[in-house]
Order: sequence, then structure tokens, then C-alpha cells
Amino acid sequence: MLRITSMQNTQVKEAVKLQNRRQRDDSGLFLIEGYRELKRAVEGGISIQKLFICPNLFLGENEEELIDTIESMGALEIECTKAVFTKLSYRDRPDGLLGIGVQMGMSLGTLGAQMGENPLLVIAEGIEKPGNLGSIMRSADGVGADGVIVCDRCTDIYNPNVVRASVGTLFTLPVVEAGGSEVFSWLQSHNIQTVATSPAAEEDFTDADLHGPVAIIVGTEQLGLSEMWLKASDTKVSIPMRGSADSLNVATATTLLLYEVLRQRKAGYPLGSDLLR
Amino acid sequence: MLRITSMQNTQVKEAVKLQNRRQRDDSGLFLIEGYRELKRAVEGGISIQKLFICPNLFLGENEEELIDTIESMGALEIECTKAVFTKLSYRDRPDGLLGIGVQMGMSLGTLGAQMGENPLLVIAEGIEKPGNLGSIMRSADGVGADGVIVCDRCTDIYNPNVVRASVGTLFTLPVVEAGGSEVFSWLQSHNIQTVATSPAAEEDFTDADLHGPVAIIVGTEQLGLSEMWLKASDTKVSIPMRGSADSLNVATATTLLLYEVLRQRKAGYPLGSDLLR
Repeated sequence: MLRITSMQNTQVKEAVKLQNRRQRDDSGLFLIEGYRELKRAVEGGISIQKLFICPNLFLGENEEELIDTIESMGALEIECTKAVFTKLSYRDRPDGLLGIGVQMGMSLGTLGAQMGENPLLVIAEGIEKPGNLGSIMRSADGVGADGVIVCDRCTDIYNPNVVRASVGTLFTLPVVEAGGSEVFSWLQSHNIQTVATSPAAEEDFTDADLHGPVAIIVGTEQLGLSEMWLKASDTKVSIPMRGSADSLNVATATTLLLYEVLRQRKAGYPLGSDLLR
Repeated sequence: MLRITSMQNTQVKEAVKLQNRRQRDDSGLFLIEGYRELKRAVEGGISIQKLFICPNLFLGENEEELIDTIESMGALEIECTKAVFTKLSYRDRPDGLLGIGVQMGMSLGTLGAQMGENPLLVIAEGIEKPGNLGSIMRSADGVGADGVIVCDRCTDIYNPNVVRASVGTLFTLPVVEAGGSEVFSWLQSHNIQTVATSPAAEEDFTDADLHGPVAIIVGTEQLGLSEMWLKASDTKVSIPMRGSADSLNVATATTLLLYEVLRQRKAGYPLGSDLLR
């Protein structure tokens, strides 16, 4: 184990650099901060090269076990002073654990091979805010979705705030980055129904038939979906807006659709057959 | 109209102070930044004392109309340089409009008098993050809820990030701040069913009967609901979690429950009667 007390230490400087996207893209590495996030990274088979720890900041009781696991998998353990760790951390309340992980790309082919018989996917096109992308992943995990496909990315999925907002579900959920037209052909070849939300759509999302293989398509915060996806989607649905605002947050809207799929699948086919359960 | 070019100007200093809660509490004033937010503040009858503008930062085409409206209602218009406005702003991308509004409290009595026959309310207990509280308001607005009651507040509803995350729906939606036990008695006296989410609950939220007068109770991000509310709630429901994480974000969970109420009310009573539509 290394011990670091200087903020000028090379290990510290290199870790801080990974807050920058360019550095992440170039190195293929990224930051994983927090107990829950690191735990899920281990579960998800992410290779962790280094683990910075600051025992003074630990919040729970199980840190030692997790640290042992990560170390036994080959990570270099680096103990820091509180001052050093605070410099490394990008959180308001650091919990004394921060790792450097190796990015692991998944292809559409792999996703296709491992998804279930009745896939449920999210296609996130051009989401700008890392917090929204992370929240979408957290909800996709919540419904047990088969995967999230990030199209024409604005935010890289290894942004520290994606990791944080996803509470690490990013690692246990299949996540693919790919171009829009490639994804579209892939969905067609797998006979997956594409469902887009649009304020202009007439059908309420709870009235649409979402029992079969389905991909929920969501677009940018400002502009919504691109013309390509809007035109090409099999089903267009709207979310009722009964107040003064005309839209919900994109992650919130995605969550509503995902849980509606879950509800319909649970209730069984055809729609309204709740009575027959 | 005043023109300000100095960051040391008293008007600027006093506005910046309102980013601090103590100052908001003491003065009864608060900040409203952004076109959408100011528009809804006007709609909601919020009195605006001052309006800082920076035409160089305007993003849309209808700013002049809104400024005229706000000025005609008695606000002092203050034009600033970009540097000054950027100091005033708490946003990444300021849009050149920031007002100082007068806080307007609503009581439980008033809420009771104006809510509909089949009320739908949210009770938010001790929410810490302003972004979550604002998102809850945005979703409550989305379903056309009768109001949001903020219990035992951690975050004051006039925090700039509540205003932002609510996209101003805070102003058009009835919002009450009150103590927990007072709210509980009030709900009982109005025969409103209290519905709490709890991971330990057996009933899926889509199986619970949420047709009648209903209050969705949600608690803090870290600890969930207090014992008082958990024990006293008429109905306890859980949200299915099929992935690696054990919970959703509190605002996301609230949204799912609110839209489930809307779906059930639309589908009609009894549960599963969708077939009869």
C-alpha cells in the first residue's frame, strides 16, 4: 500500500485529470467514486487499477471488505490524507473511496446476444446533462431493462456525474454507445418496437401496447428527439401534462415509460386484462 | 430604468445575498431567474419588486413582452452589463432575466378551501436536495395535482435551485409549508388516504387503489419516511426494483406514484376496468 500526503503527488494529479473527458477518452480510464458505485463496479466486472482510500472519511462499516476484494483483484491501494482525498473527490460529501477503472465497451452484437426474449431497451439520443443520463440508467436498472444504448453521445458514459447519478448501475446494466442509424437498423433487424415520446402525439403512454419487445427512445433536454427518430418510430406517445409546464424532465419521462412497460407485462396481454389476473 | 455597470452596486449586492437562505428568511424575498420561471411567477400572481435584465444574454424573442408585463405590475427594471449579470446569476447559461420576488405563503386552510373534490396531494417530508424538491413540484404540476405540502422542511421552497428544478411550477401550483403532525391531522380531517412508499411494503404501487382523495407521502433521500408517517399511512406500496440498485431517486419515485393515480382515475373504478372504457 502506498501512502500519499502531498497534493503534488503524480498519482493524485493523474486521477484529477480524469475528471476531464479528453483525458478519459485518451487513457480509456475513468473515476469511480463512492462505496455503492465501487461495489457495483466489482459486481459488473470492471477492472479497477487503483483505489484511493481515506479511512477518516468512511461512512459505513463494510469498507474493509470491499477494499480487500478490490485489492485481491489486483488494484493498487493508495491511502491519502483527508486534504488529498478532498482534492481527488468531486462530491460534496466524499466517503473516502475512489477508484480508477478501465472503460469497458459493449457492442450492439454482444447486447443482442445476451438480451432476453422480450427485450426492453432505452435509446438515449444526445442527452447533455450527465445527471440525466445517470438517472435514466438508474431507472433502466430499476425495471430490469436489457440495456441502455447511448446514441450520438454528448456526454460520455464515464463522466463522473453519470457514474454518480446512476449510483453505479452503469456497471451492472448493459450499456452500449453507438451511432443513430446503426442503432436504428439493429432495432429493425431484431423486430423491436420503437416508442418515442412527443408532446404532439395523441396516444397517452398508458394506452399504447408496450407488451412486446420495445425500445423507449428519448432525446435531448432542449430539443427532444431528432427528426430521424421521430419519423421512424413505430409508436408515438405523449405523457399527460395537466399543469402549467409543457414537459417533464427527460429522465423522469423515461422512467414513466419504463415502469408502464413493466406494469403492462405484469398485467398480461391484452391491455386491460388486469381483471383476469 | 436603472443601468448598472459596477459589481459593487448595492442593488447587485443585495440580490446576490438572496442566494443565502438566512437572507431569504429575514427579508421575505427570493430570486426568480429565467424566462420560463418569471413567466410562471407572473401567472401565479407573485409580486416582483425588481427585474434585472441583460439583453445581450436573451435567448428567445418574447423577452420584451414579459419585461413590459412585469414592469407594468410595478417592478423596478435594472439593466446590467454581461459581467454584472453573470455575477447575479446562479446558472450555467444565464438567459438575461432575473427578478426579486416576494415570498407568498399559503396555509393548509387555503389549500383545503381551493382544492378539488377528489384531491391529489404530495407530502414531501424533509427533502434535502433542492433539485429533488423542485422536480417533485414539476411532476405534481404535470399531473395537475391540487398541491404540494412541504413538511418539516430542510430546504426552503424559495431556494434558487428549487425554483430552477421546478421550472417555475412552484408559482402556479399551491405549495404549503407546515409541520408534520399538523399536516397529518389536516389530512385525516379531510378524509384523504395517505400513501407511503416503502421498500418493505408488499403491495406493488400499480395494484393499490388510488382512485379516491389521496396524498402521496415521500421522505428524505437518505432515510426515507419518518416512523410517524410510515406507521400512520393508510396504504404502503413498493416500487418494483429488478436490477442491482435498491431504490429510485425520491423525485422519480414520487412521479411514478402521481402518474399511476392519473392512470387509475382515467381508467375509472374499479381497478382493471380498462376493458370497460
